[in-house]
Amino acid sequence: MVLRMSTLFLRTLREDPADAEVPSHRLLVRAGYVRRVAPGIFSWLPLGYRVLRNVEQIIREEMDRSGAQEVHFPALLPREPYEATGRWTEYGANLFRLRDRKGADYLLGPTHEELFTLLVKDLYSSYKDLPLSLYQIQTKYRDEARPRAGLLRGREFNMKDSYSFDVDDTGLRRSYEQHRAAYIRTFDRLGLDYVIVAAMSGAMGGSASEEFLAPCDIGEDTYVRSPGGYAANVEAVRTPTREPVPYDDVPAAHVEETPDTPTIETLVALANERFARPDRAWVAGDTLKNVVVMLRQPDGTREPLVVGVPGDRDVDLRRLSAAVLPAEPEPFTDADFAEHPLLVRGYIGPASFDTDEPAQYLGVEASAKVRYLLDPRVVAGTRWITGANSAGHHVFDLVARRDFTADGTIDVADVRAGDPAPDGSGPLELARGIEIGHIFQLGRKYAEALDLKVLDENGRLVTVTMGCYGIGVSRAVAAIAEQNHDDAGLVWPQEVAPADVHVVPTGREEAVIAAAEQLAGGLDAAGVQVLLDDRDVSPGVKFNDAELIGVPLIVVVGRGLGRGAVEVRDRRSGERTDVPVGDAVDRLVAARAIRP
Amino acid sequence: MVLRMSTLFLRTLREDPADAEVPSHRLLVRAGYVRRVAPGIFSWLPLGYRVLRNVEQIIREEMDRSGAQEVHFPALLPREPYEATGRWTEYGANLFRLRDRKGADYLLGPTHEELFTLLVKDLYSSYKDLPLSLYQIQTKYRDEARPRAGLLRGREFNMKDSYSFDVDDTGLRRSYEQHRAAYIRTFDRLGLDYVIVAAMSGAMGGSASEEFLAPCDIGEDTYVRSPGGYAANVEAVRTPTREPVPYDDVPAAHVEETPDTPTIETLVALANERFARPDRAWVAGDTLKNVVVMLRQPDGTREPLVVGVPGDRDVDLRRLSAAVLPAEPEPFTDADFAEHPLLVRGYIGPASFDTDEPAQYLGVEASAKVRYLLDPRVVAGTRWITGANSAGHHVFDLVARRDFTADGTIDVADVRAGDPAPDGSGPLELARGIEIGHIFQLGRKYAEALDLKVLDENGRLVTVTMGCYGIGVSRAVAAIAEQNHDDAGLVWPQEVAPADVHVVPTGREEAVIAAAEQLAGGLDAAGVQVLLDDRDVSPGVKFNDAELIGVPLIVVVGRGLGRGAVEVRDRRSGERTDVPVGDAVDRLVAARAIRP
Repeated sequence: MVLRMSTLFLRTLREDPADAEVPSHRLLVRAGYVRRVAPGIFSWLPLGYRVLRNVEQIIREEMDRSGAQEVHFPALLPREPYEATGRWTEYGANLFRLRDRKGADYLLGPTHEELFTLLVKDLYSSYKDLPLSLYQIQTKYRDEARPRAGLLRGREFNMKDSYSFDVDDTGLRRSYEQHRAAYIRTFDRLGLDYVIVAAMSGAMGGSASEEFLAPCDIGEDTYVRSPGGYAANVEAVRTPTREPVPYDDVPAAHVEETPDTPTIETLVALANERFARPDRAWVAGDTLKNVVVMLRQPDGTREPLVVGVPGDRDVDLRRLSAAVLPAEPEPFTDADFAEHPLLVRGYIGPASFDTDEPAQYLGVEASAKVRYLLDPRVVAGTRWITGANSAGHHVFDLVARRDFTADGTIDVADVRAGDPAPDGSGPLELARGIEIGHIFQLGRKYAEALDLKVLDENGRLVTVTMGCYGIGVSRAVAAIAEQNHDDAGLVWPQEVAPADVHVVPTGREEAVIAAAEQLAGGLDAAGVQVLLDDRDVSPGVKFNDAELIGVPLIVVVGRGLGRGAVEVRDRRSGERTDVPVGDAVDRLVAARAIRP
Repeated sequence: MVLRMSTLFLRTLREDPADAEVPSHRLLVRAGYVRRVAPGIFSWLPLGYRVLRNVEQIIREEMDRSGAQEVHFPALLPREPYEATGRWTEYGANLFRLRDRKGADYLLGPTHEELFTLLVKDLYSSYKDLPLSLYQIQTKYRDEARPRAGLLRGREFNMKDSYSFDVDDTGLRRSYEQHRAAYIRTFDRLGLDYVIVAAMSGAMGGSASEEFLAPCDIGEDTYVRSPGGYAANVEAVRTPTREPVPYDDVPAAHVEETPDTPTIETLVALANERFARPDRAWVAGDTLKNVVVMLRQPDGTREPLVVGVPGDRDVDLRRLSAAVLPAEPEPFTDADFAEHPLLVRGYIGPASFDTDEPAQYLGVEASAKVRYLLDPRVVAGTRWITGANSAGHHVFDLVARRDFTADGTIDVADVRAGDPAPDGSGPLELARGIEIGHIFQLGRKYAEALDLKVLDENGRLVTVTMGCYGIGVSRAVAAIAEQNHDDAGLVWPQEVAPADVHVVPTGREEAVIAAAEQLAGGLDAAGVQVLLDDRDVSPGVKFNDAELIGVPLIVVVGRGLGRGAVEVRDRRSGERTDVPVGDAVDRLVAARAIRP
């Protein structure tokens, strides 16, 4: 069916919407694809819904091809299964919760691990039933604290989520690889540029995990790459482990007066001025910076955490947030400092060294009962200048392990360009991307919580192991728009475009209109989706709209008719080709990639 | 792609689920199409989701063909637009309401009138933009007091809802007719038996309205038909108006002692015994029955309502509920009687006739301040025996208009087989059906509330007039199942079936399996959707499952192979035909209706 601009429910906008921060949001609104209803909640207009359904269909086809089976769960879910896995609480304020008329608790599903697990438990009982992969394409809900960037971080959004069920780890790895291959085919067909990076598994639990990121300056995720092929989300970068260093020549720790040195910069300056090192100047990396935050658990309880990192690094909040999930780090307030007198702002250290009293150490088992975790670079034997937990005082020659210990390590210092890749494959470079897919080996967390077991070959009950795989469907639409636009508008890849060909008659003469109608009809009959601009507006308005809307092929029917030609414009390259009217249908059918 | 029973996520059940009241629910669960998650909330398994998507696709194609354009709104909606139209309150307890993390009020959309109206207001401003029809196929939410009958009355369900926008009533009627025609094509293709009946417009407001009902004994709706072609939902049946009757010969009203006559039956018996009529016996139709209920408004306020009907009729609760929307009728409790001493249980009448005191009349303007509405049969001049608002007393020869009036009429007495059709087309017969579609001329209610105006040809702002059209998508699946099953299982119509052909090999011999695989592959290559039972189970199990699942054509590959034949079974008729193996693909392609 030919789509006619004269009746299409569409109004393009000349101005950028005031609340749009990123190109995809600006262009999808301006070109009449989506419309905001509430923060992070959008309506899909006819052109937008076509793109969304094209994306859905590609995902569906590739999931089917991988052997996964489509099901569909409700979005409105009872509390009980999420209570059983602890996620009713763990999700905290991100979960939309409600009560029905009888007072029963419900939620709007953010992901459906519980439901998939229970459904398989309901139907299956034997290893012979496995492997199994199920998927759905469905509306999901998350009450984001800061919905932003249009479709990129919404509160109601579309996802494809799938789950694999296997009797053992070998099976899980095979299912994982099948999904990985299906994702590669999917994102290739979507026309996305993407990288596959090692990832944290977030609130889902589980172990091996990779993300598909669409490189993009406005992306929320930062990832690293090395020349040797290492790639990881910055949250997942593991600092290479180091050997302990000898410290026999290090003198005993000694507290020094260091007035007005609450920052690393002031401390290093003062150290070089008053406590000069004979061999070289003190640098930030000689100091141990101790950062205190308050961790809020999903149940509301709060607990302080001190993180010790070399003074030339900062704590990366994204990495910290990922590491402490499901808890959330919050600023340590004045009131918090008042409640923890050992922690002196600007002078925090692993221990107090007030000479009159016994030393007080950080650590959950120590007197302060404050959890203390160290950057992996702070290995045994390393020597530091650090706070003495007393205003205007630092301790020098403090040696890890000899003079202090911690409750463990935490790898949350910032990752920098030039840092070595953990696998020795060279220096890292950093870039930003949009998370469009996530695959991970979930393992037995949900199967254990919900008691999903099957009989194995020997008649013994074994817990099923699961994989979990997601694609942000509406987010993919935005990611495609981010990667495929120019100053004039959107530039859709063939397979997801709302139409294959945009026919633009540029005159009001009957011959022009008749030729455009005939071309549109011929293309339609050949199975090409046509958008025909049959409006009574100027050629300039039509061209502007055609470029804004971004159909891959634009056919101009107008002046060229005199010599029997129409002009085919490639929206992406801008290339213009005159084509004889009689050949136009065949040439355009050949020019567009074949839709499956 | 061939669907293989060996890996299909499916377990058929031998036993009916305990909570299933109706055949569609029983069979859809037993055959592995759907699974209950919570009251009125279901998951779709692979076979069920195929049927649902087939139904959706037919609806989509017919809506597109009618010129409607597909959009997609969120399900999570802000309160404000629903506040503006009053529906935030009017929907009462049927609306799922929730708050986001910032305390803002949201709802889960039960229907989307407000959003469609606002979207059109956002984009359009001129009569030249109209007519316009928009639709969506979307998940809807209603917190039903009594979810029941599986998919027939759920709390999360799928609907196609569409809206037409016109500049005047003529346009609205045209849009309405286009939708009506599209619905006829749709329900024909869905293989549904249906009737189109005049309807009430429910909570939507508006005037002309028709329902598409699928006749079915377990249907919740009752409808009437006359030999002359009148058809209406029983809620919408209007009693023919009657002329006033002369009452010159009726004596003055007189109160009589009628002890122990709280029911019409006891009253008629006593009247015949003590106050015998000379010409004939008293009958129930000579009495005026006054039924009192409490109306609860959506805002929680309660108001009594007395309905007067001839004593040979009852008040039909469905008709009453439809007539008083958005209020809901509730029982009049003992406490309510205590608060309204004029209303004496069993002896309620339009007036008190205590001779010692001035008469007290029912009516909002009268002393009792109790709303009083009369059945349309109680016309001026009719003569009644009715309660005297005093225990053990009735009043005789009470004449409507002469002796009492009411606040108006209400047409909620029960409709009976044999009642005359309002259009004079003969006696009515009653039947039950499932509401699968509803179309109505909404008018300007929402456009006025939300200020949707366009400039007309003369440059004047006019309010747009709207039509509203719904199809219950998930309900249609259940209605099809209700109308298409037998004792053995489901019998899907061709276009909605989860597969076209079910191939059943009945032996374990290699030749049988090879022949079945070859046939399945050949059919698949010819574009036929095949379900292949490649499980290692007995032929009996396979046949039972095939009949339960209900694919329209079953091909048995087994004993017949010796003579080069397979057996084609028509699931509906039971007819069995031997077909040469070599012809099977062609014959089956021909046998199935062509899917569009």
